[in-house]
Amino acid sequence: MANAPKANAVVSQSGGPTGVINASLVGVIEEAKKHPEIKNLYGAIHAVSGIVKENFIDLKKISDDVLETVAASPSSALGSSRDKPDDEYCKKILDVFKKQDIRYFFYIGGNDSANTCFIINNMAQQAGFELRAFHVPKTIDNDLLVTDHCPGFGTAAKFVACAIMGDDLDNRALPGIKIDCIMGRHAGFLTGAAALGKQRDDDGPHLIYLPERPITMEKFLADVEAVYKKLGRCVIAVSEGIGDTDGITWAEKVTKTDERDGHGNVQLSGTGALADYLAMRIKAKLKVKRVRADTFGYLQRSFAGLQSEVDAREARWCGRHAVQFASKDASGSVAIKRTGTGKNYAVELFRTELANVAEKTKSMPAEFINKDGNGITPAFVDYALPLTGGLPKTEYLGNKPKI
Amino acid sequence: MANAPKANAVVSQSGGPTGVINASLVGVIEEAKKHPEIKNLYGAIHAVSGIVKENFIDLKKISDDVLETVAASPSSALGSSRDKPDDEYCKKILDVFKKQDIRYFFYIGGNDSANTCFIINNMAQQAGFELRAFHVPKTIDNDLLVTDHCPGFGTAAKFVACAIMGDDLDNRALPGIKIDCIMGRHAGFLTGAAALGKQRDDDGPHLIYLPERPITMEKFLADVEAVYKKLGRCVIAVSEGIGDTDGITWAEKVTKTDERDGHGNVQLSGTGALADYLAMRIKAKLKVKRVRADTFGYLQRSFAGLQSEVDAREARWCGRHAVQFASKDASGSVAIKRTGTGKNYAVELFRTELANVAEKTKSMPAEFINKDGNGITPAFVDYALPLTGGLPKTEYLGNKPKI
Repeated sequence: MANAPKANAVVSQSGGPTGVINASLVGVIEEAKKHPEIKNLYGAIHAVSGIVKENFIDLKKISDDVLETVAASPSSALGSSRDKPDDEYCKKILDVFKKQDIRYFFYIGGNDSANTCFIINNMAQQAGFELRAFHVPKTIDNDLLVTDHCPGFGTAAKFVACAIMGDDLDNRALPGIKIDCIMGRHAGFLTGAAALGKQRDDDGPHLIYLPERPITMEKFLADVEAVYKKLGRCVIAVSEGIGDTDGITWAEKVTKTDERDGHGNVQLSGTGALADYLAMRIKAKLKVKRVRADTFGYLQRSFAGLQSEVDAREARWCGRHAVQFASKDASGSVAIKRTGTGKNYAVELFRTELANVAEKTKSMPAEFINKDGNGITPAFVDYALPLTGGLPKTEYLGNKPKI
Repeated sequence: MANAPKANAVVSQSGGPTGVINASLVGVIEEAKKHPEIKNLYGAIHAVSGIVKENFIDLKKISDDVLETVAASPSSALGSSRDKPDDEYCKKILDVFKKQDIRYFFYIGGNDSANTCFIINNMAQQAGFELRAFHVPKTIDNDLLVTDHCPGFGTAAKFVACAIMGDDLDNRALPGIKIDCIMGRHAGFLTGAAALGKQRDDDGPHLIYLPERPITMEKFLADVEAVYKKLGRCVIAVSEGIGDTDGITWAEKVTKTDERDGHGNVQLSGTGALADYLAMRIKAKLKVKRVRADTFGYLQRSFAGLQSEVDAREARWCGRHAVQFASKDASGSVAIKRTGTGKNYAVELFRTELANVAEKTKSMPAEFINKDGNGITPAFVDYALPLTGGLPKTEYLGNKPKI
């Protein structure tokens, strides 16, 4: 490998924000400051769209104080974009790189962002333009390949677990049936995280439905009825991506029913339609009066002041390592390897090829899902709990010994 | 006033849970332990329904360690109830008090609970049964009379403010129109709290709609359009209790439109119907593609690990003071007086008559609402911000100087 070129660098953030994507950004910035081969570090505003517009800010000029606040802030401090660049778009990006002498490209995002890195890297090679393109992983869905887990997931998992812990205590105080709809279009990791705060045998969520395990409405209603008959209450965690056994997601079905005509297109997040629909079905079938539904929505990915310490630390490391790897290699994606479990939880970072991550997604492995397809296994708790950085303990007195 | 009788005491929690109602409970327990005139302190499970069923636990037996966890746990550790006792129900309660030699009654709840205290206290007086009935205030709505503010509000306000801070940064990253629907059927304090985390001039929420200021759909849409044209994005905080100028709440209207047929009764919380309806109307009128809606739901009142320190401390004081007042007076409600503002924020507690609080509610005072009826004033921030115990600082880089 040739020596690292002395040139400018650009960093950007793509896709749905997370609670720690800014920690990764700060990791890139603080590491870049240590590398004399990186002349200027530009932040592109609104991801790839900011690159083609040359909408840059000078990140090395930002004070350490401000950077610490950035690292602790949710959402994407440079703005984001849903643009999925095609070849022509990527060519424009490469033109800007050539014009601005940008030879380092750090892109914080999911599998689409890894793919953008991959395409631009290939174009640069073909054009004989030396470029170092690195992908820094982020996603609350935890669905990237190679890496043990994704920065962003632990913080979202903490939010979901704390929300369900509170909601389950609320449901004990005023019993009924409660549906909580959780993000994750294709992967159930975040919905599974609803169970991470369980402390008592009868703690909710009592049922968990994941995109990986399609079920019929009949089975769903029978499950809910069984729990309600046993406990007099039921807390249900449902993924927004849950599907029927016929291959159609429930969200699609909801928009097709007469009751939902006004709702427009199949939009999973930013609407309470799916959860409300399930509440209606339960109410109609089980004749239970108190049925409520909440959709956690964007709070799961952008909530101020609630990071998983473990997640924030790892996200920052991933940013730093991207810069370190770029001083040695031409391209890659930063990945996490778990080197210790339980109380000895530890990780190491390594480089993997962009092609291993680009455009690929991971689902919940079978060993994380219970046999009935309506809950998670202890193996999933072992996997996911350390990523939350620990959860608060709670007490309920209503089931203590009576006098 | 006669000496405090040596007898048993009962404490219970009523109505919608909050994040610090358990801190008040622990305040009652720890203070009762210091009072030899209180023989046993019973916790009634599920409020008044637990009293009539004599469903009690012995609270003095619970260890200090467990009590500290209780104080930090959201929701009502003794369970709650929506029962609104009539005279016959109250007579049953009094019968249990006589049978169990209960002469202290501590009831943590809103104005309905104060009224239950009031009725039972009157009945006891008429029956010549010495009873000391004390109401401990709690409500996330902040709508009780006499007290400067209500325990429970500060924690819910912190949740709402942190949620909106994150959501506003999310909306900057991926611009569009975002509606956030917030609890508070008749009082707008909690919806107003959406503005407490504003740090930059163009931070959201850009529009705030309170139950105290009914508006027409036309004015609402015109407001949103104006902000969107100016900023290219818009974050809107809407109270679930918002009403039209014709006196009908929007939630009622939603359930009457054809689009919402499947939704059943007018239910404000535990459904995303109102927020989704507003999103649909905005989309139809303004032709903006990215319109999203979240309903914060039960997370606002029961979220594990997120208390306002100020609120938790005051809630505990209120519990303690109820027991202290009961050693001197026959009945009352604990109230908070603000004795210092801003950085010198401080409070004192005092006793007020049950009749001053029972069945009465407070709305947002006019000086807290802006002239256009679509936002709050600096006076409201001065009033409410100290109650959150402080909010995190955030940074956004997208509007920093360009290179």
